[in-house]
Amino acid sequence: MSSVKSTNVTTAQLRILALEAAAKAYSPYSQVKVGAAVVTEDGAIFTGCNIENASYGATVCAERVAIWQAVSQGHKKIEQLYVYSRDGWPPCGLCRQVMVEFGNPTMEITFGNQQGGEQMMELAELIPQAFSSEHLTNKS
Amino acid sequence: MSSVKSTNVTTAQLRILALEAAAKAYSPYSQVKVGAAVVTEDGAIFTGCNIENASYGATVCAERVAIWQAVSQGHKKIEQLYVYSRDGWPPCGLCRQVMVEFGNPTMEITFGNQQGGEQMMELAELIPQAFSSEHLTNKS
Amino acid sequence: MSSVKSTNVTTAQLRILALEAAAKAYSPYSQVKVGAAVVTEDGAIFTGCNIENASYGATVCAERVAIWQAVSQGHKKIEQLYVYSRDGWPPCGLCRQVMVEFGNPTMEITFGNQQGGEQMMELAELIPQAFSSEHLTNKS
Amino acid sequence: MSSVKSTNVTTAQLRILALEAAAKAYSPYSQVKVGAAVVTEDGAIFTGCNIENASYGATVCAERVAIWQAVSQGHKKIEQLYVYSRDGWPPCGLCRQVMVEFGNPTMEITFGNQQGGEQMMELAELIPQAFSSEHLTNKS
Repeated sequence: MSSVKSTNVTTAQLRILALEAAAKAYSPYSQVKVGAAVVTEDGAIFTGCNIENASYGATVCAERVAIWQAVSQGHKKIEQLYVYSRDGWPPCGLCRQVMVEFGNPTMEITFGNQQGGEQMMELAELIPQAFSSEHLTNKS
Repeated sequence: MSSVKSTNVTTAQLRILALEAAAKAYSPYSQVKVGAAVVTEDGAIFTGCNIENASYGATVCAERVAIWQAVSQGHKKIEQLYVYSRDGWPPCGLCRQVMVEFGNPTMEITFGNQQGGEQMMELAELIPQAFSSEHLTNKS
Repeated sequence: MSSVKSTNVTTAQLRILALEAAAKAYSPYSQVKVGAAVVTEDGAIFTGCNIENASYGATVCAERVAIWQAVSQGHKKIEQLYVYSRDGWPPCGLCRQVMVEFGNPTMEITFGNQQGGEQMMELAELIPQAFSSEHLTNKS
Repeated sequence: MSSVKSTNVTTAQLRILALEAAAKAYSPYSQVKVGAAVVTEDGAIFTGCNIENASYGATVCAERVAIWQAVSQGHKKIEQLYVYSRDGWPPCGLCRQVMVEFGNPTMEITFGNQQGGEQMMELAELIPQAFSSEHLTNKS
Protein backbone atom coordinates (compact mmCIF):
# COMPACT_ATOMS: atom_id res chain seq x y z
CA MET A 1 0.00 0.00 0.00
CA SER A 2 2.96 2.27 -0.18
CA SER A 3 4.27 2.40 -3.73
CA VAL A 4 1.73 4.50 -5.60
CA LYS A 5 3.09 7.76 -6.98
CA SER A 6 1.20 10.73 -5.60
CA THR A 7 1.03 12.34 -8.99
CA ASN A 8 -1.08 9.40 -10.01
CA VAL A 9 -3.36 9.40 -6.99
CA THR A 10 -6.74 10.96 -7.58
CA THR A 11 -9.04 12.27 -4.89
CA ALA A 12 -11.48 9.56 -5.91
CA GLN A 13 -8.92 6.90 -5.12
CA LEU A 14 -8.06 8.45 -1.77
CA ARG A 15 -11.74 8.57 -0.95
CA ILE A 16 -12.04 4.83 -1.46
CA LEU A 17 -9.03 4.14 0.74
CA ALA A 18 -10.36 6.43 3.48
CA LEU A 19 -13.78 4.82 3.26
CA GLU A 20 -12.26 1.37 3.59
CA ALA A 21 -10.15 2.52 6.54
CA ALA A 22 -13.28 3.82 8.29
CA ALA A 23 -14.59 0.25 8.41
CA LYS A 24 -11.73 -0.59 10.79
CA ALA A 25 -12.71 2.11 13.30
CA TYR A 26 -12.71 1.17 16.98
CA SER A 27 -15.42 3.40 18.39
CA PRO A 28 -17.52 1.56 20.97
CA TYR A 29 -18.25 4.80 22.83
CA SER A 30 -19.35 7.19 20.06
CA GLN A 31 -20.26 4.59 17.41
CA VAL A 32 -18.81 6.98 14.85
CA LYS A 33 -16.61 5.64 12.05
CA VAL A 34 -14.02 7.88 10.42
CA GLY A 35 -11.27 6.96 7.94
CA ALA A 36 -8.32 8.88 6.56
CA ALA A 37 -5.74 8.45 3.82
CA VAL A 38 -2.58 10.52 3.39
CA VAL A 39 -0.21 10.92 0.48
CA THR A 40 3.41 11.65 1.31
CA GLU A 41 5.88 13.76 -0.65
CA ASP A 42 7.39 10.65 -2.15
CA GLY A 43 4.04 9.30 -3.22
CA ALA A 44 3.44 6.71 -0.52
CA ILE A 45 -0.06 6.28 0.89
CA PHE A 46 -1.04 5.46 4.45
CA THR A 47 -4.45 5.08 6.06
CA GLY A 48 -5.96 5.31 9.53
CA CYS A 49 -9.21 5.16 11.46
CA ASN A 50 -10.46 6.63 14.72
CA ILE A 51 -9.53 4.58 17.79
CA GLU A 52 -11.31 5.40 21.02
CA ASN A 53 -10.49 4.73 24.66
CA ALA A 54 -12.54 4.33 27.82
CA SER A 55 -10.65 7.41 29.02
CA TYR A 56 -11.86 9.73 26.28
CA GLY A 57 -8.66 11.78 26.41
CA ALA A 58 -6.67 8.78 25.16
CA THR A 59 -8.78 8.63 21.99
CA VAL A 60 -7.11 9.30 18.64
CA CYS A 61 -8.63 10.43 15.33
CA ALA A 62 -8.25 8.78 11.93
CA GLU A 63 -6.16 11.63 10.59
CA ARG A 64 -3.45 11.32 13.23
CA VAL A 65 -3.29 7.54 12.94
CA ALA A 66 -2.67 7.87 9.19
CA ILE A 67 -0.08 10.65 9.56
CA TRP A 68 1.79 8.88 12.35
CA GLN A 69 1.88 5.67 10.36
CA ALA A 70 3.53 7.55 7.50
CA VAL A 71 6.03 9.28 9.77
CA SER A 72 6.90 6.10 11.69
CA GLN A 73 7.76 4.49 8.41
CA GLY A 74 10.07 7.29 7.39
CA HIS A 75 7.77 9.55 5.38
CA LYS A 76 7.92 12.86 7.21
CA LYS A 77 6.33 15.13 4.63
CA ILE A 78 2.58 14.87 4.05
CA GLU A 79 1.14 16.51 0.94
CA GLN A 80 -2.47 15.47 0.87
CA LEU A 81 -5.06 14.08 3.28
CA TYR A 82 -8.57 12.76 2.72
CA VAL A 83 -10.88 12.18 5.65
CA TYR A 84 -14.13 10.30 5.24
CA SER A 85 -17.09 10.21 7.59
CA ARG A 86 -20.81 9.79 7.13
CA ASP A 87 -21.39 13.51 7.46
CA GLY A 88 -18.11 14.82 6.04
CA TRP A 89 -16.64 16.13 9.30
CA PRO A 90 -13.69 18.54 9.18
CA PRO A 91 -10.56 17.63 11.21
CA CYS A 92 -10.39 18.61 14.88
CA GLY A 93 -7.82 21.04 16.25
CA LEU A 94 -5.53 18.28 17.53
CA CYS A 95 -5.22 16.77 14.06
CA ARG A 96 -4.68 20.19 12.50
CA GLN A 97 -1.82 20.76 14.94
CA VAL A 98 -0.20 17.46 13.93
CA MET A 99 -0.65 18.34 10.25
CA VAL A 100 1.27 21.56 10.85
CA GLU A 101 4.28 19.54 11.97
CA PHE A 102 4.42 17.48 8.78
CA GLY A 103 2.65 19.48 6.10
CA ASN A 104 3.24 22.70 4.22
CA PRO A 105 0.70 25.54 4.35
CA THR A 106 -0.47 24.36 0.93
CA MET A 107 -1.14 20.78 2.04
CA GLU A 108 -4.55 19.83 0.73
CA ILE A 109 -7.16 18.42 3.12
CA THR A 110 -10.40 17.06 1.70
CA PHE A 111 -13.31 15.97 3.87
CA GLY A 112 -15.97 13.89 2.18
CA ASN A 113 -19.31 12.51 3.25
CA GLN A 114 -21.31 9.39 2.49
CA GLN A 115 -23.29 10.99 -0.28
CA GLY A 116 -20.22 12.07 -2.22
CA GLY A 117 -20.12 15.68 -1.05
CA GLU A 118 -16.59 16.97 -0.60
CA GLN A 119 -14.82 20.08 0.60
CA MET A 120 -11.15 20.86 0.07
CA MET A 121 -9.14 23.31 2.16
CA GLU A 122 -5.46 24.03 2.40
CA LEU A 123 -3.73 23.63 5.76
CA ALA A 124 -3.14 27.38 6.10
CA GLU A 125 -6.89 27.87 5.74
CA LEU A 126 -7.73 25.23 8.36
CA ILE A 127 -5.34 26.60 10.96
CA PRO A 128 -4.22 30.15 10.18
CA GLN A 129 -1.39 31.58 12.24
CA ALA A 130 -0.44 28.09 13.33
CA PHE A 131 1.83 27.45 16.28
CA SER A 132 4.75 25.47 14.88
CA SER A 133 8.32 24.30 15.33
CA GLU A 134 9.47 27.67 14.02
CA HIS A 135 8.24 29.28 17.21
CA LEU A 136 10.27 26.89 19.34
CA THR A 137 13.47 27.13 17.35
CA ASN A 138 13.36 30.90 17.53
CA LYS A 139 12.98 30.80 21.27
CA SER A 140 16.58 31.52 22.18
CA MET B 1 -10.04 36.94 41.35
CA SER B 2 -13.51 36.24 40.06
CA SER B 3 -15.70 39.24 40.63
CA VAL B 4 -14.55 41.75 38.03
CA LYS B 5 -17.20 42.63 35.44
CA SER B 6 -16.00 41.79 31.94
CA THR B 7 -17.30 45.07 30.64
CA ASN B 8 -14.75 46.68 32.88
CA VAL B 9 -11.82 44.47 31.96
CA THR B 10 -9.38 46.00 29.53
CA THR B 11 -6.90 44.11 27.40
CA ALA B 12 -4.16 45.82 29.36
CA GLN B 13 -5.50 44.34 32.60
CA LEU B 14 -5.77 40.87 31.09
CA ARG B 15 -2.22 41.18 29.86
CA ILE B 16 -0.99 41.81 33.39
CA LEU B 17 -2.89 38.80 34.74
CA ALA B 18 -1.57 36.56 31.95
CA LEU B 19 1.96 37.80 32.53
CA GLU B 20 1.68 37.08 36.24
CA ALA B 21 0.28 33.62 35.52
CA ALA B 22 3.24 32.85 33.24
CA ALA B 23 5.53 33.19 36.25
CA LYS B 24 3.85 30.07 37.70
CA ALA B 25 4.66 27.93 34.63
CA TYR B 26 6.00 24.43 35.26
CA SER B 27 8.19 23.86 32.23
CA PRO B 28 11.39 22.05 33.18
CA TYR B 29 11.64 20.45 29.73
CA SER B 30 11.12 23.39 27.36
CA GLN B 31 11.98 26.23 29.79
CA VAL B 32 9.21 28.21 28.12
CA LYS B 33 6.80 30.25 30.24
CA VAL B 34 3.30 31.01 28.97
CA GLY B 35 0.37 32.55 30.83
CA ALA B 36 -3.28 32.97 29.96
CA ALA B 37 -6.28 34.85 31.31
CA VAL B 38 -9.89 34.30 30.30
CA VAL B 39 -13.01 36.36 30.81
CA THR B 40 -16.29 34.49 31.08
CA GLU B 41 -19.72 35.61 29.93
CA ASP B 42 -20.62 36.64 33.46
CA GLY B 43 -17.46 38.65 33.87
CA ALA B 44 -15.38 36.28 35.95
CA ILE B 45 -11.66 35.98 35.26
CA PHE B 46 -9.49 32.87 35.48
CA THR B 47 -5.82 32.36 34.74
CA GLY B 48 -3.52 29.50 33.81
CA CYS B 49 0.03 28.62 32.87
CA ASN B 50 1.68 25.86 30.86
CA ILE B 51 2.31 22.68 32.85
CA GLU B 52 4.63 20.11 31.30
CA ASN B 53 5.11 16.40 31.90
CA ALA B 54 8.01 14.00 31.45
CA SER B 55 5.73 12.26 28.96
CA TYR B 56 5.36 15.20 26.61
CA GLY B 57 1.86 14.11 25.56
CA ALA B 58 0.58 14.75 29.09
CA THR B 59 1.62 18.39 28.87
CA VAL B 60 -1.04 21.10 28.96
CA CYS B 61 -0.95 24.69 27.71
CA ALA B 62 -1.78 27.84 29.66
CA GLU B 63 -4.92 28.47 27.63
CA ARG B 64 -6.51 25.15 28.51
CA VAL B 65 -5.63 25.42 32.19
CA ALA B 66 -7.37 28.81 32.34
CA ILE B 67 -10.45 27.65 30.40
CA TRP B 68 -10.83 24.46 32.41
CA GLN B 69 -10.53 26.38 35.66
CA ALA B 70 -13.40 28.58 34.54
CA VAL B 71 -15.56 25.65 33.46
CA SER B 72 -14.85 23.62 36.57
CA GLN B 73 -16.09 26.52 38.65
CA GLY B 74 -19.31 26.75 36.70
CA HIS B 75 -18.47 29.33 34.03
CA LYS B 76 -19.07 27.51 30.77
CA LYS B 77 -19.04 30.41 28.34
CA ILE B 78 -15.71 32.08 27.56
CA GLU B 79 -15.77 35.45 25.83
CA GLN B 80 -12.20 36.60 25.78
CA LEU B 81 -8.73 35.09 26.18
CA TYR B 82 -5.31 36.68 26.48
CA VAL B 83 -2.20 34.57 26.15
CA TYR B 84 1.20 35.96 27.02
CA SER B 85 4.61 34.59 26.08
CA ARG B 86 7.99 36.13 25.46
CA ASP B 87 7.50 35.95 21.71
CA GLY B 88 3.73 36.31 21.51
CA TRP B 89 2.93 32.75 20.42
CA PRO B 90 -0.51 31.97 18.98
CA PRO B 91 -2.51 29.13 20.60
CA CYS B 92 -1.90 25.54 19.44
CA GLY B 93 -4.56 23.44 17.74
CA LEU B 94 -5.46 21.58 20.93
CA CYS B 95 -6.28 24.82 22.73
CA ARG B 96 -8.25 26.11 19.75
CA GLN B 97 -10.34 22.93 19.83
CA VAL B 98 -11.10 23.44 23.52
CA MET B 99 -12.01 27.08 22.85
CA VAL B 100 -14.55 25.89 20.27
CA GLU B 101 -16.37 23.96 22.97
CA PHE B 102 -16.79 26.99 25.23
CA GLY B 103 -16.54 30.05 23.00
CA ASN B 104 -18.58 31.63 20.25
CA PRO B 105 -17.07 32.22 16.81
CA THR B 106 -16.64 35.85 17.85
CA MET B 107 -14.66 35.03 21.00
CA GLU B 108 -11.62 37.30 21.05
CA ILE B 109 -8.16 35.82 21.44
CA THR B 110 -5.21 38.15 21.93
CA PHE B 111 -1.61 36.96 21.97
CA GLY B 112 0.93 39.36 23.31
CA ASN B 113 4.70 39.37 23.59
CA GLN B 114 7.24 40.72 26.04
CA GLN B 115 7.77 43.94 24.17
CA GLY B 116 4.10 44.84 24.17
CA GLY B 117 3.28 43.66 20.65
CA GLU B 118 -0.21 42.18 20.41
CA GLN B 119 -2.39 40.47 17.85
CA MET B 120 -6.12 39.88 18.19
CA MET B 121 -8.08 37.26 16.27
CA GLU B 122 -11.59 35.93 16.63
CA LEU B 123 -12.07 32.22 17.24
CA ALA B 124 -13.61 31.66 13.82
CA GLU B 125 -10.44 33.12 12.30
CA LEU B 126 -8.15 30.92 14.38
CA ILE B 127 -10.00 27.69 13.56
CA PRO B 128 -12.28 28.07 10.55
CA GLN B 129 -14.72 25.26 9.82
CA ALA B 130 -14.23 23.96 13.33
CA PHE B 131 -15.26 20.48 14.38
CA SER B 132 -17.73 20.97 17.21
CA SER B 133 -20.50 19.50 19.31
CA GLU B 134 -22.92 20.37 16.54
CA HIS B 135 -21.37 17.68 14.38
CA LEU B 136 -21.89 15.09 17.09
CA THR B 137 -25.44 16.02 17.95
CA ASN B 138 -26.42 15.86 14.30
CA LYS B 139 -24.97 12.42 13.94
CA SER B 140 -28.15 10.41 14.28
CA MET C 1 -10.98 27.36 49.44
CA SER C 2 -7.24 27.36 49.90
CA SER C 3 -6.39 27.95 53.51
CA VAL C 4 -7.27 24.67 55.22
CA LYS C 5 -4.30 22.88 56.75
CA SER C 6 -3.90 19.43 55.24
CA THR C 7 -3.31 17.93 58.63
CA ASN C 8 -6.83 18.96 59.44
CA VAL C 9 -8.44 17.70 56.27
CA THR C 10 -10.24 14.42 56.65
CA THR C 11 -11.11 12.05 53.84
CA ALA C 12 -14.73 12.72 54.64
CA GLN C 13 -14.24 16.41 53.97
CA LEU C 14 -12.41 15.77 50.71
CA ARG C 15 -15.22 13.47 49.65
CA ILE C 16 -17.74 16.26 50.06
CA LEU C 17 -15.62 18.67 48.05
CA ALA C 18 -15.12 16.10 45.28
CA LEU C 19 -18.82 15.33 45.23
CA GLU C 20 -19.66 19.00 44.93
CA ALA C 21 -17.10 19.42 42.15
CA ALA C 22 -18.70 16.55 40.23
CA ALA C 23 -21.87 18.58 39.94
CA LYS C 24 -19.96 21.04 37.74
CA ALA C 25 -18.94 18.34 35.22
CA TYR C 26 -19.27 19.18 31.53
CA SER C 27 -19.98 15.79 30.01
CA PRO C 28 -22.59 16.05 27.26
CA TYR C 29 -21.11 13.05 25.42
CA SER C 30 -20.73 10.45 28.17
CA GLN C 31 -23.20 11.91 30.69
CA VAL C 32 -20.76 10.83 33.39
CA LYS C 33 -20.00 13.16 36.30
CA VAL C 34 -16.69 12.90 38.14
CA GLY C 35 -15.22 15.24 40.76
CA ALA C 36 -11.82 15.45 42.39
CA ALA C 37 -10.21 17.28 45.28
CA VAL C 38 -6.48 17.54 45.97
CA VAL C 39 -4.53 18.55 49.03
CA THR C 40 -1.15 20.18 48.46
CA GLU C 41 1.95 19.95 50.61
CA ASP C 42 1.18 23.32 52.15
CA GLY C 43 -2.37 22.32 52.97
CA ALA C 44 -4.23 24.10 50.19
CA ILE C 45 -7.19 22.37 48.54
CA PHE C 46 -8.23 22.51 44.88
CA THR C 47 -11.05 20.80 43.06
CA GLY C 48 -11.89 19.78 39.51
CA CYS C 49 -14.44 17.98 37.36
CA ASN C 50 -14.33 16.12 34.05
CA ILE C 51 -14.64 18.39 31.01
CA GLU C 52 -15.35 16.73 27.70
CA ASN C 53 -14.86 17.84 24.10
CA ALA C 54 -16.54 16.99 20.80
CA SER C 55 -13.12 15.70 19.79
CA TYR C 56 -12.87 13.07 22.49
CA GLY C 57 -9.06 13.37 22.61
CA ALA C 58 -9.36 16.93 23.94
CA THR C 59 -11.32 15.71 26.96
CA VAL C 60 -9.81 16.09 30.42
CA CYS C 61 -10.56 14.21 33.65
CA ALA C 62 -11.47 15.68 37.03
CA GLU C 63 -8.17 14.63 38.57
CA ARG C 64 -6.05 16.58 36.10
CA VAL C 65 -8.22 19.69 36.33
CA ALA C 66 -7.76 19.70 40.11
CA ILE C 67 -4.01 19.06 39.97
CA TRP C 68 -3.39 21.66 37.27
CA GLN C 69 -5.38 24.23 39.21
CA ALA C 70 -3.13 23.65 42.20
CA VAL C 71 0.06 23.85 40.14
CA SER C 72 -1.04 26.93 38.22
CA GLN C 73 -1.55 28.69 41.52
CA GLY C 74 1.91 27.81 42.72
CA HIS C 75 1.31 24.58 44.64
CA LYS C 76 3.54 22.08 42.91
CA LYS C 77 3.49 19.24 45.42
CA ILE C 78 0.30 17.17 45.74
CA GLU C 79 -0.07 14.93 48.78
CA GLN C 80 -3.56 13.57 48.60
CA LEU C 81 -6.31 13.19 45.99
CA TYR C 82 -9.92 12.12 46.29
CA VAL C 83 -11.91 11.26 43.20
CA TYR C 84 -15.65 10.78 43.36
CA SER C 85 -17.92 9.12 40.81
CA ARG C 86 -21.17 7.20 41.02
CA ASP C 87 -19.36 3.90 40.74
CA GLY C 88 -16.05 4.80 42.39
CA TRP C 89 -13.89 4.70 39.27
CA PRO C 90 -10.10 4.57 39.63
CA PRO C 91 -8.02 7.22 37.81
CA CYS C 92 -7.06 6.62 34.17
CA GLY C 93 -3.47 6.24 33.02
CA LEU C 94 -3.23 9.85 31.83
CA CYS C 95 -4.12 11.17 35.27
CA ARG C 96 -1.73 8.75 36.96
CA GLN C 97 1.06 10.07 34.72
CA VAL C 98 0.28 13.65 35.76
CA MET C 99 0.20 12.60 39.42
CA VAL C 100 3.72 11.19 39.01
CA GLU C 101 4.96 14.64 38.05
CA PHE C 102 3.63 16.30 41.20
CA GLY C 103 3.26 13.56 43.78
CA ASN C 104 5.55 11.33 45.79
CA PRO C 105 5.25 7.55 45.56
CA THR C 106 3.39 7.69 48.86
CA MET C 107 0.78 10.19 47.65
CA GLU C 108 -2.61 8.86 48.69
CA ILE C 109 -5.37 8.46 46.10
CA THR C 110 -8.86 7.57 47.28
CA PHE C 111 -11.69 6.73 44.90
CA GLY C 112 -15.15 6.76 46.36
CA ASN C 113 -18.59 5.87 45.05
CA GLN C 114 -22.11 7.12 45.60
CA GLN C 115 -22.90 4.60 48.28
CA GLY C 116 -19.93 5.53 50.42
CA GLY C 117 -17.61 2.74 49.34
CA GLU C 118 -13.99 3.86 49.17
CA GLN C 119 -10.64 2.47 48.14
CA MET C 120 -7.27 4.03 48.92
CA MET C 121 -4.06 3.33 47.03
CA GLU C 122 -0.68 4.99 47.06
CA LEU C 123 0.66 6.41 43.81
CA ALA C 124 3.41 3.80 43.59
CA GLU C 125 0.70 1.13 43.72
CA LEU C 126 -1.39 2.79 41.01
CA ILE C 127 1.50 3.20 38.59
CA PRO C 128 4.47 1.03 39.53
CA GLN C 129 7.74 1.63 37.69
CA ALA C 130 6.46 4.98 36.57
CA PHE C 131 8.06 6.95 33.78
CA SER C 132 9.11 10.26 35.31
CA SER C 133 11.27 13.34 35.08
CA GLU C 134 14.14 11.33 36.53
CA HIS C 135 14.32 9.36 33.31
CA LEU C 136 14.65 12.52 31.28
CA THR C 137 17.19 14.23 33.46
CA ASN C 138 19.39 11.14 33.41
CA LYS C 139 19.31 11.00 29.66
CA SER C 140 22.65 12.66 28.98
CA MET D 1 5.91 -7.32 8.24
CA SER D 2 2.62 -8.82 9.28
CA SER D 3 2.61 -12.56 8.71
CA VAL D 4 4.91 -13.92 11.41
CA LYS D 5 3.22 -16.24 13.89
CA SER D 6 3.50 -14.89 17.41
CA THR D 7 4.38 -18.32 18.73
CA ASN D 8 7.48 -18.05 16.64
CA VAL D 9 8.45 -14.53 17.65
CA THR D 10 11.18 -14.32 20.24
CA THR D 11 11.86 -11.35 22.47
CA ALA D 12 15.20 -11.04 20.72
CA GLN D 13 13.45 -10.59 17.39
CA LEU D 14 11.04 -8.01 18.80
CA ARG D 15 13.97 -6.15 20.25
CA ILE D 16 15.57 -5.83 16.84
CA LEU D 17 12.33 -4.56 15.30
CA ALA D 18 11.85 -2.04 18.11
CA LEU D 19 15.45 -0.89 17.80
CA GLU D 20 15.04 -0.40 14.06
CA ALA D 21 11.79 1.50 14.62
CA ALA D 22 13.55 3.84 17.06
CA ALA D 23 15.75 5.03 14.21
CA LYS D 24 12.63 6.54 12.60
CA ALA D 25 11.81 8.66 15.65
CA TYR D 26 10.80 12.27 15.05
CA SER D 27 12.02 13.98 18.19
CA PRO D 28 13.52 17.38 17.42
CA TYR D 29 12.53 18.72 20.84
CA SER D 30 13.75 16.02 23.24
CA GLN D 31 16.29 14.34 20.94
CA VAL D 32 15.16 11.04 22.46
CA LYS D 33 14.62 8.02 20.23
CA VAL D 34 12.21 5.27 21.27
CA GLY D 35 10.93 2.31 19.26
CA ALA D 36 8.22 -0.25 19.91
CA ALA D 37 7.04 -3.52 18.40
CA VAL D 38 3.77 -5.28 19.18
CA VAL D 39 2.56 -8.80 18.51
CA THR D 40 -1.16 -9.26 17.98
CA GLU D 41 -3.29 -12.24 18.92
CA ASP D 42 -3.14 -13.53 15.37
CA GLY D 43 0.62 -13.23 15.22
CA ALA D 44 0.98 -10.05 13.22
CA ILE D 45 3.71 -7.58 14.15
CA PHE D 46 3.58 -3.78 13.99
CA THR D 47 6.13 -1.19 14.96
CA GLY D 48 6.17 2.47 15.96
CA CYS D 49 8.41 5.29 17.12
CA ASN D 50 7.93 8.45 19.18
CA ILE D 51 6.66 11.41 17.17
CA GLU D 52 6.85 14.82 18.81
CA ASN D 53 5.05 18.08 18.17
CA ALA D 54 5.89 21.73 18.75
CA SER D 55 2.86 21.71 21.04
CA TYR D 56 4.17 19.08 23.42
CA GLY D 57 0.67 17.83 24.21
CA ALA D 58 0.26 16.61 20.62
CA THR D 59 3.27 14.33 21.00
CA VAL D 60 2.78 10.57 20.78
CA CYS D 61 4.94 7.73 22.12
CA ALA D 62 6.31 4.76 20.20
CA GLU D 63 4.05 2.31 22.02
CA ARG D 64 0.83 4.02 20.97
CA VAL D 65 1.94 4.41 17.36
CA ALA D 66 2.61 0.67 17.17
CA ILE D 67 -0.66 -0.32 18.87
CA TRP D 68 -2.77 2.05 16.78
CA GLN D 69 -1.15 0.77 13.60
CA ALA D 70 -2.18 -2.75 14.57
CA VAL D 71 -5.72 -1.72 15.46
CA SER D 72 -6.19 0.40 12.35
CA GLN D 73 -5.31 -2.61 10.27
CA GLY D 74 -7.84 -4.80 12.00
CA HIS D 75 -5.80 -6.40 14.77
CA LYS D 76 -7.59 -5.38 17.95
CA LYS D 77 -5.96 -7.74 20.43
CA ILE D 78 -2.36 -7.08 21.48
CA GLU D 79 -0.50 -9.84 23.29
CA GLN D 80 3.04 -8.59 23.59
CA LEU D 81 4.91 -5.30 23.38
CA TYR D 82 8.61 -4.50 23.33
CA VAL D 83 9.79 -0.96 23.83
CA TYR D 84 13.38 0.02 23.18
CA SER D 85 15.22 3.13 24.31
CA ARG D 86 18.80 3.93 25.21
CA ASP D 87 18.06 3.70 28.91
CA GLY D 88 15.24 1.12 28.85
CA TRP D 89 12.41 3.46 29.82
CA PRO D 90 9.11 1.99 31.02
CA PRO D 91 5.90 3.09 29.21
CA CYS D 92 4.17 6.29 30.35
CA GLY D 93 0.68 6.32 31.81
CA LEU D 94 -0.95 7.33 28.53
CA CYS D 95 0.45 4.30 26.75
CA ARG D 96 -0.53 2.02 29.64
CA GLN D 97 -4.10 3.31 29.34
CA VAL D 98 -4.16 2.51 25.62
CA MET D 99 -2.74 -0.96 26.32
CA VAL D 100 -5.64 -1.60 28.70
CA GLU D 101 -8.07 -1.08 25.83
CA PHE D 102 -6.45 -3.71 23.62
CA GLY D 103 -4.56 -6.05 25.92
CA ASN D 104 -5.40 -8.60 28.58
CA PRO D 105 -4.07 -8.24 32.11
CA THR D 106 -1.48 -10.86 31.18
CA MET D 107 -0.19 -8.93 28.15
CA GLU D 108 3.60 -8.92 28.36
CA ILE D 109 5.49 -5.63 28.15
CA THR D 110 9.27 -5.71 27.91
CA PHE D 111 11.43 -2.59 28.09
CA GLY D 112 14.99 -2.95 26.94
CA ASN D 113 18.00 -0.68 26.91
CA GLN D 114 20.98 -0.18 24.66
CA GLN D 115 23.24 -2.47 26.63
CA GLY D 116 20.88 -5.41 26.43
CA GLY D 117 19.28 -5.03 29.83
CA GLU D 118 15.59 -5.95 29.84
CA GLN D 119 12.66 -5.96 32.21
CA MET D 120 9.34 -7.72 31.62
CA MET D 121 6.08 -6.85 33.35
CA GLU D 122 2.52 -7.90 32.74
CA LEU D 123 -0.05 -5.22 32.01
CA ALA D 124 -1.85 -5.78 35.32
CA GLU D 125 1.44 -5.07 37.06
CA LEU D 126 2.08 -1.88 35.10
CA ILE D 127 -1.37 -0.43 35.72
CA PRO D 128 -3.16 -2.18 38.59
CA GLN D 129 -6.85 -1.39 39.08
CA ALA D 130 -7.00 0.00 35.58
CA PHE D 131 -9.84 2.18 34.39
CA SER D 132 -11.33 0.36 31.42
CA SER D 133 -14.29 -0.09 29.09
CA GLU D 134 -15.88 -2.30 31.74
CA HIS D 135 -16.39 0.73 33.93
CA LEU D 136 -18.19 2.56 31.14
CA THR D 137 -20.41 -0.31 30.07
CA ASN D 138 -21.52 -0.84 33.65
CA LYS D 139 -22.44 2.77 34.02
CA SER D 140 -26.20 2.44 33.50
